[in-house]
Amino acid sequence: MNFPSKLIEQAVSEFEKLPGIGKKTALRLVLHLLKQDKESVELFSDSIVRMRSLIRFCRNCHNISDNELCSICESLKRNHSLVCVVESIRDVIAIESTNQYHGLYHVLGGVISPLEGIGPEEVNIESLAVRCSNGDVKEVIMALNPTIEGDTTIFYISKKLQSLPVKITSIARGISFGGELEYVDDITLGRSIATRMPYENYLVHRE
Amino acid sequence: MNFPSKLIEQAVSEFEKLPGIGKKTALRLVLHLLKQDKESVELFSDSIVRMRSLIRFCRNCHNISDNELCSICESLKRNHSLVCVVESIRDVIAIESTNQYHGLYHVLGGVISPLEGIGPEEVNIESLAVRCSNGDVKEVIMALNPTIEGDTTIFYISKKLQSLPVKITSIARGISFGGELEYVDDITLGRSIATRMPYENYLVHRE
Repeated sequence: MNFPSKLIEQAVSEFEKLPGIGKKTALRLVLHLLKQDKESVELFSDSIVRMRSLIRFCRNCHNISDNELCSICESLKRNHSLVCVVESIRDVIAIESTNQYHGLYHVLGGVISPLEGIGPEEVNIESLAVRCSNGDVKEVIMALNPTIEGDTTIFYISKKLQSLPVKITSIARGISFGGELEYVDDITLGRSIATRMPYENYLVHRE
Repeated sequence: MNFPSKLIEQAVSEFEKLPGIGKKTALRLVLHLLKQDKESVELFSDSIVRMRSLIRFCRNCHNISDNELCSICESLKRNHSLVCVVESIRDVIAIESTNQYHGLYHVLGGVISPLEGIGPEEVNIESLAVRCSNGDVKEVIMALNPTIEGDTTIFYISKKLQSLPVKITSIARGISFGGELEYVDDITLGRSIATRMPYENYLVHRE
Protein backbone atom coordinates (compact mmCIF):
# COMPACT_ATOMS: atom_id res chain seq x y z
CA MET A 1 0.00 0.00 0.00
CA ASN A 2 1.18 3.50 -0.83
CA PHE A 3 0.26 6.14 1.68
CA PRO A 4 -0.04 9.80 0.71
CA SER A 5 1.26 10.81 4.15
CA LYS A 6 4.27 9.68 6.18
CA LEU A 7 2.37 10.38 9.41
CA ILE A 8 -0.40 7.98 8.41
CA GLU A 9 2.15 5.42 7.29
CA GLN A 10 3.92 5.50 10.65
CA ALA A 11 0.68 5.20 12.62
CA VAL A 12 -0.49 2.32 10.41
CA SER A 13 2.79 0.47 10.82
CA GLU A 14 2.55 0.87 14.61
CA PHE A 15 -1.00 -0.53 14.68
CA GLU A 16 0.10 -3.39 12.45
CA LYS A 17 2.45 -4.61 15.17
CA LEU A 18 -0.52 -5.49 17.38
CA PRO A 19 -1.59 -9.15 17.31
CA GLY A 20 -4.37 -9.98 14.85
CA ILE A 21 -4.24 -6.55 13.18
CA GLY A 22 -3.35 -6.58 9.47
CA LYS A 23 -2.56 -3.68 7.17
CA LYS A 24 -6.17 -3.02 6.14
CA THR A 25 -7.52 -3.13 9.70
CA ALA A 26 -4.64 -0.91 10.86
CA LEU A 27 -5.56 1.64 8.21
CA ARG A 28 -9.22 1.49 9.21
CA LEU A 29 -8.33 2.16 12.86
CA VAL A 30 -5.99 5.03 11.94
CA LEU A 31 -8.58 6.67 9.68
CA HIS A 32 -11.13 6.26 12.47
CA LEU A 33 -8.83 8.04 14.93
CA LEU A 34 -8.22 10.73 12.33
CA LYS A 35 -11.93 11.54 12.41
CA GLN A 36 -12.04 11.87 16.22
CA ASP A 37 -11.27 15.18 17.93
CA LYS A 38 -7.76 15.79 19.24
CA GLU A 39 -8.75 15.46 22.91
CA SER A 40 -10.15 11.95 22.57
CA VAL A 41 -7.13 10.81 20.58
CA GLU A 42 -4.88 12.17 23.32
CA LEU A 43 -7.01 10.42 25.92
CA PHE A 44 -6.59 7.16 23.99
CA SER A 45 -2.87 7.61 23.70
CA ASP A 46 -2.42 8.71 27.33
CA SER A 47 -4.34 5.77 28.72
CA ILE A 48 -1.91 3.42 26.95
CA VAL A 49 1.28 5.16 28.05
CA ARG A 50 0.03 5.55 31.63
CA MET A 51 -1.02 1.91 31.74
CA ARG A 52 2.39 0.77 30.54
CA SER A 53 4.47 3.06 32.74
CA LEU A 54 2.46 2.94 36.00
CA ILE A 55 1.33 -0.67 36.09
CA ARG A 56 2.92 -2.91 38.72
CA PHE A 57 2.80 -6.59 39.52
CA CYS A 58 1.40 -7.72 42.85
CA ARG A 59 4.21 -8.69 45.23
CA ASN A 60 2.15 -11.60 46.52
CA CYS A 61 0.42 -13.18 43.50
CA HIS A 62 2.09 -11.53 40.42
CA ASN A 63 -1.27 -10.29 39.19
CA ILE A 64 -1.33 -6.84 37.56
CA SER A 65 -1.95 -4.16 40.11
CA ASP A 66 -2.06 -0.40 40.63
CA ASN A 67 -0.28 -0.78 43.99
CA GLU A 68 2.25 -3.04 45.65
CA LEU A 69 -0.51 -5.51 46.52
CA CYS A 70 -3.33 -6.13 44.04
CA SER A 71 -6.92 -5.40 45.00
CA ILE A 72 -7.64 -9.12 45.34
CA CYS A 73 -4.75 -9.86 47.73
CA GLU A 74 -5.61 -6.72 49.69
CA SER A 75 -9.29 -7.53 50.10
CA LEU A 76 -10.45 -8.77 53.51
CA LYS A 77 -13.58 -10.21 51.90
CA ARG A 78 -11.57 -12.86 50.03
CA ASN A 79 -10.70 -16.26 51.47
CA HIS A 80 -6.94 -16.09 52.05
CA SER A 81 -6.63 -19.83 52.64
CA LEU A 82 -7.53 -20.62 49.03
CA VAL A 83 -5.08 -20.03 46.16
CA CYS A 84 -5.99 -20.59 42.50
CA VAL A 85 -2.95 -21.17 40.26
CA VAL A 86 -3.36 -19.75 36.73
CA GLU A 87 -1.06 -19.23 33.78
CA SER A 88 -1.82 -15.61 32.95
CA ILE A 89 -3.58 -12.43 33.96
CA ARG A 90 -6.19 -13.18 31.32
CA ASP A 91 -7.20 -16.30 33.27
CA VAL A 92 -7.62 -14.21 36.43
CA ILE A 93 -9.95 -11.86 34.57
CA ALA A 94 -11.91 -14.81 33.13
CA ILE A 95 -12.38 -16.44 36.54
CA GLU A 96 -13.21 -13.12 38.23
CA SER A 97 -15.92 -12.56 35.61
CA THR A 98 -17.74 -15.69 36.80
CA ASN A 99 -18.20 -14.15 40.29
CA GLN A 100 -17.97 -17.72 41.64
CA TYR A 101 -14.52 -17.65 43.20
CA HIS A 102 -13.64 -15.75 46.34
CA GLY A 103 -10.11 -16.94 47.13
CA LEU A 104 -6.76 -15.54 46.01
CA TYR A 105 -4.71 -16.23 42.88
CA HIS A 106 -1.18 -17.09 41.91
CA VAL A 107 -0.19 -16.04 38.39
CA LEU A 108 2.61 -18.25 37.03
CA GLY A 109 3.28 -16.02 34.03
CA GLY A 110 3.74 -19.09 31.84
CA VAL A 111 3.93 -22.86 31.99
CA ILE A 112 6.88 -25.22 31.96
CA SER A 113 7.71 -26.00 28.34
CA PRO A 114 10.97 -27.85 27.66
CA LEU A 115 10.38 -27.46 23.90
CA GLU A 116 10.41 -23.68 24.19
CA GLY A 117 13.20 -23.71 26.76
CA ILE A 118 10.97 -22.58 29.64
CA GLY A 119 12.04 -24.32 32.82
CA PRO A 120 10.52 -24.18 36.31
CA GLU A 121 12.73 -21.18 37.19
CA GLU A 122 11.17 -19.05 34.44
CA VAL A 123 7.69 -19.31 35.95
CA ASN A 124 6.59 -18.10 39.40
CA ILE A 125 6.62 -21.48 41.15
CA GLU A 126 9.19 -20.74 43.86
CA SER A 127 7.12 -17.84 45.21
CA LEU A 128 4.06 -20.14 45.30
CA ALA A 129 5.99 -22.59 47.47
CA VAL A 130 6.98 -19.75 49.79
CA ARG A 131 3.36 -18.56 50.02
CA CYS A 132 2.22 -22.09 50.86
CA SER A 133 4.87 -22.65 53.50
CA ASN A 134 3.74 -19.96 55.94
CA GLY A 135 0.65 -21.93 57.03
CA ASP A 136 -2.10 -19.56 55.84
CA VAL A 137 -2.84 -21.44 52.63
CA LYS A 138 -4.98 -24.55 53.06
CA GLU A 139 -5.84 -25.40 49.45
CA VAL A 140 -4.22 -24.81 46.05
CA ILE A 141 -6.56 -25.09 43.05
CA MET A 142 -4.84 -25.84 39.73
CA ALA A 143 -6.55 -23.96 36.88
CA LEU A 144 -4.13 -24.47 33.99
CA ASN A 145 -5.01 -25.29 30.41
CA PRO A 146 -5.18 -29.06 29.76
CA THR A 147 -2.12 -29.17 27.46
CA ILE A 148 1.03 -31.23 27.89
CA GLU A 149 2.78 -28.13 29.24
CA GLY A 150 -0.07 -27.38 31.64
CA ASP A 151 -0.13 -30.95 32.93
CA THR A 152 3.66 -30.97 33.32
CA THR A 153 3.46 -27.77 35.34
CA ILE A 154 0.70 -29.15 37.57
CA PHE A 155 2.77 -32.28 38.18
CA TYR A 156 5.88 -30.23 39.02
CA ILE A 157 3.97 -27.98 41.43
CA SER A 158 2.28 -30.95 43.13
CA LYS A 159 5.70 -32.54 43.73
CA LYS A 160 7.08 -29.25 45.02
CA LEU A 161 4.22 -28.79 47.50
CA GLN A 162 3.82 -32.42 48.59
CA SER A 163 5.65 -32.00 51.88
CA LEU A 164 3.50 -29.02 52.88
CA PRO A 165 0.12 -29.35 54.66
CA VAL A 166 -1.72 -28.03 51.60
CA LYS A 167 -4.55 -29.76 49.75
CA ILE A 168 -4.08 -29.74 45.97
CA THR A 169 -7.16 -29.77 43.74
CA SER A 170 -7.91 -29.13 40.08
CA ILE A 171 -10.80 -27.31 38.45
CA ALA A 172 -13.41 -29.82 37.23
CA ARG A 173 -12.95 -31.24 33.74
CA GLY A 174 -15.94 -32.60 31.87
CA ILE A 175 -18.70 -31.71 29.43
CA SER A 176 -19.49 -28.00 29.16
CA PHE A 177 -22.92 -26.88 30.29
CA GLY A 178 -24.76 -26.48 26.99
CA GLY A 179 -22.43 -28.92 25.26
CA GLU A 180 -24.06 -31.76 23.33
CA LEU A 181 -22.78 -35.26 24.04
CA GLU A 182 -22.52 -36.35 20.40
CA TYR A 183 -20.10 -33.54 19.56
CA VAL A 184 -17.82 -33.92 22.57
CA ASP A 185 -14.35 -35.39 21.94
CA ASP A 186 -13.77 -38.98 23.04
CA ILE A 187 -11.23 -38.24 25.76
CA THR A 188 -13.41 -35.68 27.51
CA LEU A 189 -16.50 -37.88 27.25
CA GLY A 190 -14.69 -41.00 28.42
CA ARG A 191 -13.07 -39.23 31.36
CA SER A 192 -16.32 -37.47 32.26
CA ILE A 193 -17.85 -40.89 32.89
CA ALA A 194 -14.80 -42.18 34.78
CA THR A 195 -14.71 -39.05 36.98
CA ARG A 196 -18.50 -38.68 37.34
CA MET A 197 -19.68 -36.47 40.18
CA PRO A 198 -22.38 -36.79 42.85
CA TYR A 199 -25.74 -35.40 41.78
CA GLU A 200 -25.57 -32.82 44.63
CA ASN A 201 -22.52 -31.24 42.94
CA TYR A 202 -24.38 -31.11 39.65
CA LEU A 203 -27.20 -29.22 41.35
CA VAL A 204 -24.74 -26.62 42.68
CA HIS A 205 -23.88 -25.69 39.12
CA ARG A 206 -27.53 -25.35 38.13
CA GLU A 207 -28.22 -22.60 40.69
CA MET B 1 -15.41 -8.28 33.04
CA ASN B 2 -13.78 -7.30 36.31
CA PHE B 3 -10.30 -5.85 35.99
CA PRO B 4 -7.80 -6.05 38.83
CA SER B 5 -6.37 -2.68 37.79
CA LYS B 6 -7.99 0.66 36.99
CA LEU B 7 -5.17 1.46 34.54
CA ILE B 8 -5.89 -1.66 32.52
CA GLU B 9 -9.61 -0.96 32.65
CA GLN B 10 -9.14 2.53 31.22
CA ALA B 11 -6.85 1.35 28.42
CA VAL B 12 -9.27 -1.46 27.53
CA SER B 13 -12.22 0.91 27.42
CA GLU B 14 -10.26 3.24 25.11
CA PHE B 15 -9.39 0.41 22.72
CA GLU B 16 -13.01 -0.73 22.77
CA LYS B 17 -14.07 2.56 21.16
CA LEU B 18 -12.26 1.59 17.95
CA PRO B 19 -14.42 0.09 15.21
CA GLY B 20 -14.58 -3.70 15.17
CA ILE B 21 -12.77 -4.06 18.51
CA GLY B 22 -14.76 -5.77 21.26
CA LYS B 23 -13.95 -6.15 24.94
CA LYS B 24 -11.97 -9.39 24.56
CA THR B 25 -9.89 -8.10 21.63
CA ALA B 26 -9.29 -4.83 23.47
CA LEU B 27 -7.98 -6.76 26.45
CA ARG B 28 -5.75 -8.88 24.22
CA LEU B 29 -4.23 -5.75 22.65
CA VAL B 30 -3.71 -4.08 26.03
CA LEU B 31 -2.03 -7.17 27.51
CA HIS B 32 0.15 -7.34 24.40
CA LEU B 33 1.26 -3.72 24.88
CA LEU B 34 1.87 -4.48 28.55
CA LYS B 35 4.47 -7.04 27.52
CA GLN B 36 6.33 -4.61 25.22
CA ASP B 37 9.06 -2.34 26.55
CA LYS B 38 8.19 1.22 27.50
CA GLU B 39 9.95 2.79 24.53
CA SER B 40 7.96 0.90 21.90
CA VAL B 41 4.69 1.66 23.70
CA GLU B 42 5.63 5.35 23.71
CA LEU B 43 6.49 5.12 20.02
CA PHE B 44 3.08 3.59 19.36
CA SER B 45 1.31 6.26 21.34
CA ASP B 46 3.37 9.13 19.88
CA SER B 47 2.75 8.07 16.30
CA ILE B 48 -1.00 8.32 16.92
CA VAL B 49 -0.95 11.70 18.61
CA ARG B 50 1.45 13.13 16.03
CA MET B 51 -0.64 11.78 13.19
CA ARG B 52 -3.79 13.35 14.62
CA SER B 53 -2.29 16.72 15.51
CA LEU B 54 0.00 17.28 12.49
CA ILE B 55 -2.04 15.84 9.66
CA ARG B 56 -3.48 18.30 7.16
CA PHE B 57 -5.80 18.04 4.22
CA CYS B 58 -4.50 18.92 0.76
CA ARG B 59 -5.73 22.38 -0.28
CA ASN B 60 -6.24 21.14 -3.82
CA CYS B 61 -7.73 17.65 -3.60
CA HIS B 62 -8.67 17.22 0.13
CA ASN B 63 -6.50 14.13 0.39
CA ILE B 64 -4.59 13.65 3.66
CA SER B 65 -1.23 15.33 3.53
CA ASP B 66 1.82 16.25 5.58
CA ASN B 67 2.01 19.66 3.88
CA GLU B 68 -0.34 22.22 2.34
CA LEU B 69 -0.33 20.26 -0.91
CA CYS B 70 -0.31 16.46 -0.86
CA SER B 71 2.55 14.53 -2.44
CA ILE B 72 0.33 13.55 -5.38
CA CYS B 73 -0.77 17.10 -6.25
CA GLU B 74 2.81 18.29 -5.79
CA SER B 75 4.34 15.64 -8.06
CA LEU B 76 5.45 16.75 -11.51
CA LYS B 77 5.39 13.12 -12.67
CA ARG B 78 1.60 12.96 -12.41
CA ASN B 79 -0.77 13.90 -15.20
CA HIS B 80 -2.39 17.13 -13.95
CA SER B 81 -5.09 17.12 -16.66
CA LEU B 82 -6.69 13.97 -15.19
CA VAL B 83 -8.74 14.05 -11.96
CA CYS B 84 -10.18 10.93 -10.36
CA VAL B 85 -13.18 11.65 -8.07
CA VAL B 86 -13.38 9.33 -5.05
CA GLU B 87 -15.44 9.21 -1.89
CA SER B 88 -12.72 8.77 0.72
CA ILE B 89 -9.01 8.67 1.44
CA ARG B 90 -9.28 4.90 1.61
CA ASP B 91 -10.22 4.84 -2.09
CA VAL B 92 -7.14 6.92 -2.94
CA ILE B 93 -4.94 4.40 -1.15
CA ALA B 94 -6.69 1.49 -2.93
CA ILE B 95 -6.21 3.05 -6.38
CA GLU B 96 -2.62 4.08 -5.63
CA SER B 97 -1.86 0.48 -4.68
CA THR B 98 -2.69 -0.65 -8.22
CA ASN B 99 0.13 1.50 -9.65
CA GLN B 100 -2.06 1.92 -12.76
CA TYR B 101 -3.20 5.51 -12.33
CA HIS B 102 -0.98 8.53 -12.74
CA GLY B 103 -3.38 11.46 -12.61
CA LEU B 104 -4.61 13.49 -9.63
CA TYR B 105 -7.51 12.88 -7.24
CA HIS B 106 -10.41 14.75 -5.76
CA VAL B 107 -11.63 13.40 -2.41
CA LEU B 108 -15.31 14.23 -1.87
CA GLY B 109 -15.27 13.20 1.79
CA GLY B 110 -18.71 11.59 1.37
CA VAL B 111 -21.53 11.16 -1.12
CA ILE B 112 -24.87 12.93 -1.46
CA SER B 113 -27.38 11.08 0.70
CA PRO B 114 -30.76 12.75 1.23
CA LEU B 115 -31.74 9.97 3.66
CA GLU B 116 -28.84 10.84 5.96
CA GLY B 117 -29.28 14.56 5.41
CA ILE B 118 -26.06 14.94 3.40
CA GLY B 119 -26.59 17.50 0.64
CA PRO B 120 -24.20 18.63 -2.12
CA GLU B 121 -22.81 21.38 0.15
CA GLU B 122 -21.57 18.82 2.70
CA VAL B 123 -19.26 17.15 0.17
CA ASN B 124 -16.35 18.77 -1.69
CA ILE B 125 -18.13 19.32 -5.03
CA GLU B 126 -17.85 23.11 -5.23
CA SER B 127 -14.04 22.95 -5.05
CA LEU B 128 -14.06 20.31 -7.83
CA ALA B 129 -15.98 22.72 -10.06
CA VAL B 130 -13.46 25.46 -9.29
CA ARG B 131 -10.56 23.11 -10.13
CA CYS B 132 -12.19 22.16 -13.44
CA SER B 133 -12.93 25.76 -14.44
CA ASN B 134 -9.31 26.94 -14.71
CA GLY B 135 -8.68 24.98 -17.92
CA ASP B 136 -5.95 22.58 -16.69
CA VAL B 137 -8.28 19.63 -16.16
CA LYS B 138 -9.27 17.77 -19.32
CA GLU B 139 -10.95 14.68 -17.90
CA VAL B 140 -12.77 13.80 -14.67
CA ILE B 141 -12.99 10.07 -13.88
CA MET B 142 -15.83 9.09 -11.54
CA ALA B 143 -14.73 6.32 -9.18
CA LEU B 144 -17.58 6.18 -6.68
CA ASN B 145 -19.21 3.06 -5.27
CA PRO B 146 -22.18 1.87 -7.38
CA THR B 147 -24.85 2.64 -4.77
CA ILE B 148 -27.87 4.90 -5.12
CA GLU B 149 -25.96 7.62 -3.26
CA GLY B 150 -22.89 7.16 -5.46
CA ASP B 151 -24.95 7.33 -8.65
CA THR B 152 -26.82 10.41 -7.39
CA THR B 153 -23.51 12.11 -6.67
CA ILE B 154 -22.12 11.25 -10.13
CA PHE B 155 -25.30 12.64 -11.72
CA TYR B 156 -25.09 15.85 -9.68
CA ILE B 157 -21.40 16.38 -10.53
CA SER B 158 -21.98 15.70 -14.23
CA LYS B 159 -24.74 18.36 -14.27
CA LYS B 160 -22.50 20.77 -12.39
CA LEU B 161 -19.61 20.33 -14.84
CA GLN B 162 -21.60 20.08 -18.09
CA SER B 163 -20.91 23.65 -19.19
CA LEU B 164 -17.15 23.20 -18.75
CA PRO B 165 -14.82 21.78 -21.45
CA VAL B 166 -14.16 18.67 -19.36
CA LYS B 167 -14.72 15.07 -20.44
CA ILE B 168 -16.52 13.00 -17.79
CA THR B 169 -15.83 9.26 -17.62
CA SER B 170 -16.49 6.46 -15.15
CA ILE B 171 -14.28 3.58 -14.10
CA ALA B 172 -15.25 0.44 -16.00
CA ARG B 173 -18.00 -1.71 -14.53
CA GLY B 174 -18.20 -5.38 -15.45
CA ILE B 175 -17.12 -8.83 -14.42
CA SER B 176 -14.07 -8.99 -12.13
CA PHE B 177 -10.96 -10.62 -13.54
CA GLY B 178 -11.08 -14.04 -11.95
CA GLY B 179 -14.86 -13.85 -11.46
CA GLU B 180 -16.88 -16.78 -12.78
CA LEU B 181 -19.84 -15.94 -14.99
CA GLU B 182 -22.31 -18.28 -13.31
CA TYR B 183 -21.86 -16.58 -9.91
CA VAL B 184 -22.07 -12.98 -11.14
CA ASP B 185 -25.25 -11.05 -10.28
CA ASP B 186 -27.77 -10.51 -13.08
CA ILE B 187 -27.43 -6.73 -13.31
CA THR B 188 -23.64 -6.80 -13.65
CA LEU B 189 -23.75 -9.64 -16.18
CA GLY B 190 -26.53 -8.04 -18.24
CA ARG B 191 -24.84 -4.64 -18.28
CA SER B 192 -21.46 -6.20 -19.05
CA ILE B 193 -22.92 -7.47 -22.33
CA ALA B 194 -24.68 -4.21 -23.13
CA THR B 195 -21.50 -2.19 -22.44
CA ARG B 196 -19.09 -4.72 -24.00
CA MET B 197 -15.65 -3.38 -24.84
CA PRO B 198 -13.33 -3.71 -27.85
CA TYR B 199 -10.97 -6.69 -27.67
CA GLU B 200 -7.96 -4.30 -27.73
CA ASN B 201 -9.11 -2.85 -24.39
CA TYR B 202 -9.42 -6.35 -22.94
CA LEU B 203 -5.83 -7.03 -23.94
CA VAL B 204 -4.66 -3.92 -22.10
CA HIS B 205 -5.93 -5.41 -18.88
CA ARG B 206 -4.19 -8.72 -19.50
CA GLU B 207 -0.77 -7.17 -19.61
